[in-house]
Amino acid sequence: MNAHLDNLRVVLVGTRNPLNIGAAARAMSNFGVKHLRVVNVYEVAFREARSAVDAAELLLKAEEFGSVAEAVADCRLVVGTTAAGRRELRHELRRLEQGGRSIRRRLASGPAALLFGSEKVGLSNTDLSHCDWLLRIPTRTQHGSMNLGQAVALCLYELVREGKTPPAKAESTSAEAGKVEMITQLLVGVLRSSGYVKPRLDAVTEENVRRMVRRMRLDASDAEVWLGILRQIAWKLSG
Amino acid sequence: MNAHLDNLRVVLVGTRNPLNIGAAARAMSNFGVKHLRVVNVYEVAFREARSAVDAAELLLKAEEFGSVAEAVADCRLVVGTTAAGRRELRHELRRLEQGGRSIRRRLASGPAALLFGSEKVGLSNTDLSHCDWLLRIPTRTQHGSMNLGQAVALCLYELVREGKTPPAKAESTSAEAGKVEMITQLLVGVLRSSGYVKPRLDAVTEENVRRMVRRMRLDASDAEVWLGILRQIAWKLSG
Repeated sequence: MNAHLDNLRVVLVGTRNPLNIGAAARAMSNFGVKHLRVVNVYEVAFREARSAVDAAELLLKAEEFGSVAEAVADCRLVVGTTAAGRRELRHELRRLEQGGRSIRRRLASGPAALLFGSEKVGLSNTDLSHCDWLLRIPTRTQHGSMNLGQAVALCLYELVREGKTPPAKAESTSAEAGKVEMITQLLVGVLRSSGYVKPRLDAVTEENVRRMVRRMRLDASDAEVWLGILRQIAWKLSG
Repeated sequence: MNAHLDNLRVVLVGTRNPLNIGAAARAMSNFGVKHLRVVNVYEVAFREARSAVDAAELLLKAEEFGSVAEAVADCRLVVGTTAAGRRELRHELRRLEQGGRSIRRRLASGPAALLFGSEKVGLSNTDLSHCDWLLRIPTRTQHGSMNLGQAVALCLYELVREGKTPPAKAESTSAEAGKVEMITQLLVGVLRSSGYVKPRLDAVTEENVRRMVRRMRLDASDAEVWLGILRQIAWKLSG
């Protein structure tokens, strides 16, 4: 078992079927992953899943959040999962085999979130805009969409799987997602007050800015510098 | 995809829950495995599973057998699956990672069967006696027993999984150094006029900003966006 698996947060977004929440929790228990977070799950489904027998303790300790931003705020890596066929605008897509390796490495240095979308539509574009990159399970193009419980099981298996040992690469500590989101919001404000975008910003523009900021892959110390810079610019523009 | 995957037969023995038969079939469809065989499945469950939408064609073509012996008769390799904790008398036990490799190799030379037991009791000793060796999914000892649909998904994933070096990653085109330097200079100007740094900037500060901009690892298209943003801010601050 990966010693750093305790840093993993499985985040279910908008899940509707209690059986799927239960199946996700059971797979987590099978592979020793403890931290489940749910965002806007269908309330009835969550209650029903909690009454299920398997992995009851894990479900009782699950944390509920009102938004993806809050659910990933303390994470230093945010990865979204997606079906094979989907084209994600400007998002790096990694196959599970390779992506799993990156996640494993990153778990050594801090909390990481793995997001799973709803059964019908997966993760929305706004959800995706919070992700550093996307993970693709190598299913067939003709039938790409997986059952949620199975998708969770596969991703976790890849993380505990015995492979060649990845080399210990000295990586700088990534900024927390909460900090990155603060930078996003500040930048959005500056773009507005500088006239770069219209005062009434549409959602797509905000998502594009969010993705662009994620692509900067800020480490913790650069994030502080950027926060300072943007605060200063925002203050000056308001004067 | 493994070219010899057509030689694989997934054999469900004594399955009772139609949802599990459906989930197994769906995972097979996801990973391009076509041949499902069922042995002594609960008849009602099989009918219900067949009426499910996902992987309907695969389920219609599923073959029914009265015994494991008949179901595996044409196979050159028979592998049983088992939960982590169970001690199987006189049977070689291989972890999924290593066992999967053997199965892959053997699929090249003829049909191979992968057996999954019932939800409650798994494969019986008689069922196991038909197996060349057993495959163990590396779950925790404390919670070894997996959901059937998830177990099938994991085993099939391991068979289609890309083992060796990842294929060349299509990376986006990095921004030209000249563009990156334009961004650096614009940012330095903005830092000065916003009051973030003193008007007479020292060389060290400028170098720090340059390094920080390089760490953004901008691609060509993001570089253009940042140029536009910084020009607009600079213009607004000068007004």
